[in-house]
Amino acid sequence: MSESEFDIIHHYFTDLSPAVTDVRSVVLGIGDDAAIVQPAQDQQLLIAIDTLNCGVHFSEQCSPADIGYKALAVNLSDIAAMGGEPLWFTLALSLPESDPQWLAEFCSGMRELLQQYPVSLIGGDTTRGPLSITIQIAGQVPATAALRRDQLSIGDDLYITGNPGEAAAGLALSDTVIVNEQQRQLLQRLHRPEPRVALGQALRGIAHACIDVSDGLSADLSHMLNASAEHQAQPTGACLFAESLPVSAALQDTVSSITQQREYILHGGDDYELCFSAAPEQKQVIEALAMQYGLAITCIGQVIAEPGLFLQENQQRQPITPAGFDHFRYYP
Amino acid sequence: MSESEFDIIHHYFTDLSPAVTDVRSVVLGIGDDAAIVQPAQDQQLLIAIDTLNCGVHFSEQCSPADIGYKALAVNLSDIAAMGGEPLWFTLALSLPESDPQWLAEFCSGMRELLQQYPVSLIGGDTTRGPLSITIQIAGQVPATAALRRDQLSIGDDLYITGNPGEAAAGLALSDTVIVNEQQRQLLQRLHRPEPRVALGQALRGIAHACIDVSDGLSADLSHMLNASAEHQAQPTGACLFAESLPVSAALQDTVSSITQQREYILHGGDDYELCFSAAPEQKQVIEALAMQYGLAITCIGQVIAEPGLFLQENQQRQPITPAGFDHFRYYP
Repeated sequence: MSESEFDIIHHYFTDLSPAVTDVRSVVLGIGDDAAIVQPAQDQQLLIAIDTLNCGVHFSEQCSPADIGYKALAVNLSDIAAMGGEPLWFTLALSLPESDPQWLAEFCSGMRELLQQYPVSLIGGDTTRGPLSITIQIAGQVPATAALRRDQLSIGDDLYITGNPGEAAAGLALSDTVIVNEQQRQLLQRLHRPEPRVALGQALRGIAHACIDVSDGLSADLSHMLNASAEHQAQPTGACLFAESLPVSAALQDTVSSITQQREYILHGGDDYELCFSAAPEQKQVIEALAMQYGLAITCIGQVIAEPGLFLQENQQRQPITPAGFDHFRYYP
Repeated sequence: MSESEFDIIHHYFTDLSPAVTDVRSVVLGIGDDAAIVQPAQDQQLLIAIDTLNCGVHFSEQCSPADIGYKALAVNLSDIAAMGGEPLWFTLALSLPESDPQWLAEFCSGMRELLQQYPVSLIGGDTTRGPLSITIQIAGQVPATAALRRDQLSIGDDLYITGNPGEAAAGLALSDTVIVNEQQRQLLQRLHRPEPRVALGQALRGIAHACIDVSDGLSADLSHMLNASAEHQAQPTGACLFAESLPVSAALQDTVSSITQQREYILHGGDDYELCFSAAPEQKQVIEALAMQYGLAITCIGQVIAEPGLFLQENQQRQPITPAGFDHFRYYP
């Protein structure tokens, strides 16, 4: 028996939307033409939107719980990259048909994140169509405290959290039989990225510029370089140190070729790690944050006055051609 | 030559996003992980999201300009129904391929509305996938002044703006050759709904409850009845007067059957007119608003203490079975 749109909203989404009095700033949640929110004074709102399409961002074989988790995680990651505190989100869900089991599992994946982050579903639109999930999320940040991508400063150190490249290595394993824990870990990194929300907030006042790595480290770093060069009207480049790039045990053991490892680290997408810059004198503060949050934070390079993106190895500097996931152009 | 995602964003969307200083409340627009907005104090934010999918909400033959116009118009209509002033929107656009001409026309359709409403594109996500447009819009309203759907009061008059049913009659003409101005008008009502933004704001403090009619008058009125009955914990129904239902000349001349006319008026979707309730003593105020905005506003019924939706004709009251567009259940 098929369920109507209103039944779907009622049955599956209501418990993703806690009673409005539980969540600061939400006056009226799901059910009217629009939700009503009352933003806190002295805070700015951060607004991000991300779509996941079946066959593009995830395969037909992907579990509904993983899809639900990831659709929300990538949006939380955007708020993290701005140094924000997530508040609420809306969900536009296109489904080929009403499928109660799919919906229950999809919601269970989102719920795992809601247990960690007090963010509330305040509205949505459920439509018939090819499977597609668009989430718009809002967060808050004290006025002028947001971490922007256009604030790289010449001489800054460049940092990356976690282990970029693991998700790309996981994607390469998608169609194979998983034989050990390390392969399972790589797949987990693809399907269950951990948004760095707490760290993002802790980096306010410490990081100069920040971005979350979704298209690939080289591509997203290039976005930072371009935005900063334009914003500050001065040439801005970056030099990465090959020997500093973090290579996890799982990546090392699963991918034997060092060239391929580096390809994943520099150009793989879907990492949802934070790439940020900070003045060299913040080094110890950042090491302390890594300890506090139990998260690897690696200094991988430096912001330089020469435009372009370079990799330094054995005292030699080679240009890196930014490559990464682009929906309408495929890099080699 | 195909254009990359970043080129697409840059070329087509930049001029939908005026310089941020032009638009109150937008601190940082397109280009970072999230936009930054600074909501005005003493205002509440209204948040709505709506998706249009190819083959469901519009046909493959639909012009890109009409699609762009309508995707934004239906969202503006949600803000209108809450009595809000639209501020900004985000756009999640899934495209099968990068098509410069399609994008230019799509944006031109949105731009027509931006010339009327000072609302700004502040962010988005452009992905590859089956053609689908999701817009999330935000508006503002003075605290506690929003028009909600759960505020019907027994004894209220019920009003509808414009001519419901014209869009449904237009849909029925979609595959035929248009032979006269009236048919063209009906199609225009389908493709170019006019969000009642100014009237929505003028109804603050006058209307008790308000909704925009997207699923069909009977379906959306039922949503108001259910929400109001639940919110106020009392039976709430509505009686419509058959002889009061507005029948436009275009509908009358194009659709000969009175039964079919009424079917379109009561159950047709895509009207994007406002259906609202007000105390009987507001009658003259509402007539004055109709004059001021050059818009028909018709009293079509009354809110009653008996649950259910009824049509009264020749002193006889018949129940109306709510019917309208539901993506996962098809009414007769």
